[in-house]
Amino acid sequence: MRVVCSFIERTSKAVCQKTSRVYSSFQDCPRYSKALVLLTVSGGGFLAYSGAKSFFGPDSSLQDDRKRVIVLGTGWAGTTFLKNLDSTQYDVKVISPRNYFAFTPLLPSVTVGTVEARSIVEPIRNIIKKKLGNVGFLEAECYEIDAKNKKVHCRSTQKTGLEGKEEFIVDYDYLVVATGARANTFNTPGVEEHTHFLKEIEDAQNIRRNVIDCFERANLPNLSDEERKNNLHFVVVGGGPTGVEFAAELHDFLEEDLSRLYPQVKDFVKITLVEAADHILNMFDKRITAFAEEKFQRDGIDVKLGSMVVKVNDKAISTKERSTGLVQHIPYGMVVWSTGIGTRPFITNFMKKIGQGNRRVLATDEWLRVEGEDCDGIYALGDCATINQRKVMDDIAAIFKKADKDNSGTLTVKKLQEVMEDICERYPQVKLYLKNKRMKNIVALLEESKGDDNKESKEFDIERVKTALSAVDSQMKNLPPTAQVAAQQGQYLAKCFNRMKECDQNPEGPLRIRDEGRHRFHPFRYRHLGQFAPLGGEQTAAQLPGDLVSIGHSSQWLWYSVYASKQVSWRNRLLVISDWGKRFVHGRDSSRL
Amino acid sequence: MRVVCSFIERTSKAVCQKTSRVYSSFQDCPRYSKALVLLTVSGGGFLAYSGAKSFFGPDSSLQDDRKRVIVLGTGWAGTTFLKNLDSTQYDVKVISPRNYFAFTPLLPSVTVGTVEARSIVEPIRNIIKKKLGNVGFLEAECYEIDAKNKKVHCRSTQKTGLEGKEEFIVDYDYLVVATGARANTFNTPGVEEHTHFLKEIEDAQNIRRNVIDCFERANLPNLSDEERKNNLHFVVVGGGPTGVEFAAELHDFLEEDLSRLYPQVKDFVKITLVEAADHILNMFDKRITAFAEEKFQRDGIDVKLGSMVVKVNDKAISTKERSTGLVQHIPYGMVVWSTGIGTRPFITNFMKKIGQGNRRVLATDEWLRVEGEDCDGIYALGDCATINQRKVMDDIAAIFKKADKDNSGTLTVKKLQEVMEDICERYPQVKLYLKNKRMKNIVALLEESKGDDNKESKEFDIERVKTALSAVDSQMKNLPPTAQVAAQQGQYLAKCFNRMKECDQNPEGPLRIRDEGRHRFHPFRYRHLGQFAPLGGEQTAAQLPGDLVSIGHSSQWLWYSVYASKQVSWRNRLLVISDWGKRFVHGRDSSRL
Repeated sequence: MRVVCSFIERTSKAVCQKTSRVYSSFQDCPRYSKALVLLTVSGGGFLAYSGAKSFFGPDSSLQDDRKRVIVLGTGWAGTTFLKNLDSTQYDVKVISPRNYFAFTPLLPSVTVGTVEARSIVEPIRNIIKKKLGNVGFLEAECYEIDAKNKKVHCRSTQKTGLEGKEEFIVDYDYLVVATGARANTFNTPGVEEHTHFLKEIEDAQNIRRNVIDCFERANLPNLSDEERKNNLHFVVVGGGPTGVEFAAELHDFLEEDLSRLYPQVKDFVKITLVEAADHILNMFDKRITAFAEEKFQRDGIDVKLGSMVVKVNDKAISTKERSTGLVQHIPYGMVVWSTGIGTRPFITNFMKKIGQGNRRVLATDEWLRVEGEDCDGIYALGDCATINQRKVMDDIAAIFKKADKDNSGTLTVKKLQEVMEDICERYPQVKLYLKNKRMKNIVALLEESKGDDNKESKEFDIERVKTALSAVDSQMKNLPPTAQVAAQQGQYLAKCFNRMKECDQNPEGPLRIRDEGRHRFHPFRYRHLGQFAPLGGEQTAAQLPGDLVSIGHSSQWLWYSVYASKQVSWRNRLLVISDWGKRFVHGRDSSRL
Repeated sequence: MRVVCSFIERTSKAVCQKTSRVYSSFQDCPRYSKALVLLTVSGGGFLAYSGAKSFFGPDSSLQDDRKRVIVLGTGWAGTTFLKNLDSTQYDVKVISPRNYFAFTPLLPSVTVGTVEARSIVEPIRNIIKKKLGNVGFLEAECYEIDAKNKKVHCRSTQKTGLEGKEEFIVDYDYLVVATGARANTFNTPGVEEHTHFLKEIEDAQNIRRNVIDCFERANLPNLSDEERKNNLHFVVVGGGPTGVEFAAELHDFLEEDLSRLYPQVKDFVKITLVEAADHILNMFDKRITAFAEEKFQRDGIDVKLGSMVVKVNDKAISTKERSTGLVQHIPYGMVVWSTGIGTRPFITNFMKKIGQGNRRVLATDEWLRVEGEDCDGIYALGDCATINQRKVMDDIAAIFKKADKDNSGTLTVKKLQEVMEDICERYPQVKLYLKNKRMKNIVALLEESKGDDNKESKEFDIERVKTALSAVDSQMKNLPPTAQVAAQQGQYLAKCFNRMKECDQNPEGPLRIRDEGRHRFHPFRYRHLGQFAPLGGEQTAAQLPGDLVSIGHSSQWLWYSVYASKQVSWRNRLLVISDWGKRFVHGRDSSRL
């Protein structure tokens, strides 16, 4: 049905495109009206008249009363924000070196051709096309944020055709930083030069090409068996979900396709998974970890636990066993590096300027607003930032004061109950703590040490409250750098932007603790919907909400349906599903493209 | 149906792979039998025992009584040869830097994403997998043919992992040279550096990426309208089928997709087609040429006829009008160069060594055997060679002698009729000439100038025959460098190889004119099945056999069905068709991948 729609849409859009453009720009600035006459007469004239700047330039739509929103990045956070934003309220510009959104959870599948690269990408302009109002895209990377003057400095990533015009500056009223993270090498020598990361589509394509290269090399004459073995030794560094899924996908590729196409060398193939911790998938339930390790052992994937990579050169990778300190030099054909994420350089510089120089990751408050000087109007979400949850202990006095309306110096249960809800919303760790302690509210916590007498009249002084809440902050955890978190943040922030005006009048958030009145919005709250770990051979481990664990073929089908449904467009959905079908019928393509 | 088959095939092959391997290698050389026991016990042991050389090395299967066939190239000629060859009769090794076959007629569609690159390629190992006997593939390029010692010198195209083992030598009994041609720059300065060719899959992918780059560049702020225009000026050099089809595809891409995605810059776009001759598609019927030129004019494609490119630099392309000598420097965003083919360097060297140094293209006889010293057992087909058809005038004496069995010095009609068929087969230009003159046989030609009296007794002397046949050789034409020719040659040569033994005993070819007996095989004869020129907007011009011409939407559908049916595998067929469907529903993908 939707397919048909999109088809009709395409044809109809073709007709009404120009008129709608005219309409929107007419709203933007009446002074164009003259130009519009030209436009309606002959398309070409318009730009010639109004010139480039008014369309793209730094001072774009200054005459517009609508606020200018700049979105940096077209990943999960940025794209979800854009999709959910009511773009008629703002003048939106998206800036990213990638003119497409990529469904990153399927990257491991792309590395071996289970899914084609183009099936999991959606041109950002296809999304923009469907938005009303004034939304634009610029293919460039931001290299500096000038928070003081509310400007971002950008540079095109293109090599030719822009002599001296690569760089430009764009003004903003609101800046949404969603540039994601880069692979983290922990400054291990040789990693940048000799290993493959698995963060971008290009990485996946390179890996795919390289796997075939390794096989073609090993298949050439006058190599010794030793050299064939080395060329067909695939090393995966990092036992997280990505590394594990890649190892599994690679193993399936070898078993199901390459072993039949390269019969002479298939017995030289070896996969090694190197993990510094004591177990792979250690963010998952123990049962999953155990199952994964057993399955990999059965599959002949050599899992080296508790050993870290200390050096990589063009021929060998050097690992060091944490327990024994033993260093090994292992010859390899290809190394894939997937050991977590690091901060991008331009974010690090930005952090220094706004007084976050001492931090490792850019910090925001619970409303995704960047903390620091001049950061008013700057939001950060996705992998490039973490939420810096306020500690109860830092605010304890203010909390007490807020609750103790009559400044009696003590709190009654009644007083407490009035602010209870706000406190729990403002400090989610309180709720978590109570939940773990199986208590229904703070009162229970305060009473913990005491017998049960008349509640209403009972009073607690600040010391009592302090001791009761002292352990609460231990509950705080950073959110994992996953697509799920980024998408939820993007959606949340878009909702806030859509209701900005309305919530300015009547705030809906919790009480301000160190201040008067209420917060404008509810703080961001992450809802974990579960996580998958595909283990190959049509088996997947799924950790679902409520510590439910499901392992095997059934969860593989759950995985298929979830990943198909999560695609950003029907186009992607159909492509991905047909790719899965193709693979079942014809196997994966082994052409070296 | 076939899909199901191939599915069953996959699963069953998985089971019987090993056994069949064992069987074939058992036939190859009994001395392996010991190893085979090992193999049947555990796969790994085999190679470890028999070592690498015996599998891949120069001396591969020397103990084998079967002749060693080396096929250079995996293009149309090489792949069709391989597919049709009875590989149980020979020990076959395919050597090519590309481990896949590409359906080149669809390359222009790949440049804009009408069809995906992977849809038109088939891994050569998928084809080999289906062949019986001992067939292998080596990913390397041949850089020297040592005809004297029957060896080819090869080099892997890979950069890493082969320290000092890149080069190797392979022996052959029969060498099939099907390495295709390279783009011809006519030594125009700057072409290699600044233009895109359109011969390989990678070329098409680069062009696709570059088209999007041009649009993203033109869309950036602080460019002048002039600079936007230049960045969006696409120049196509060469008005042959490829150049014309690319221009048409590009125009459709802009009209149907990009104009909606880049509304601000769409009016700056311009396509220019530069052709040195007076018309585009000049190998086609006049009606087609005229239609194409009109359509391009309507589409706003600027066709510059009679002007040749004299220089290209990083910003502008310089053209020179043949008539006026006027030189123009045209700024461009992208140039695609498609002006015919040139000979590969290693072929040129080979030609020097075998005494063809004075020729531009490698010459073969009508049986596709390379002419020259030590060239026994070397065949060349496809774009890398041309058939050097023997002239009647060179052999006229021999022909006369052959016909004049009793050495009477004159020929009677009866004598002539006996050798008539052989002569016509050996010298096809004779048949052509008669056809054009609307005569039914040579006799008619000889009688041309004479009255009609008693045929049987009439006699002609050699002078008479000479004058009659003097104009015949003017009919000779070289075959066009098309996929169709290459494929027919591959098929023909495979048939010859399959019937080699049988035809050694009883030759089936025409009488040897300058020698005794008959030729082993019929000479290669090309059957032209027609040619397409897609002109965009779902319109195609088709030149069919018998000078039939069809232009418009109907022939577009003919084009679809022919190109779908000509795919080398069902996999490709399904992919290509689904790509066409995708494009109709979702349009083409504009992600910069």
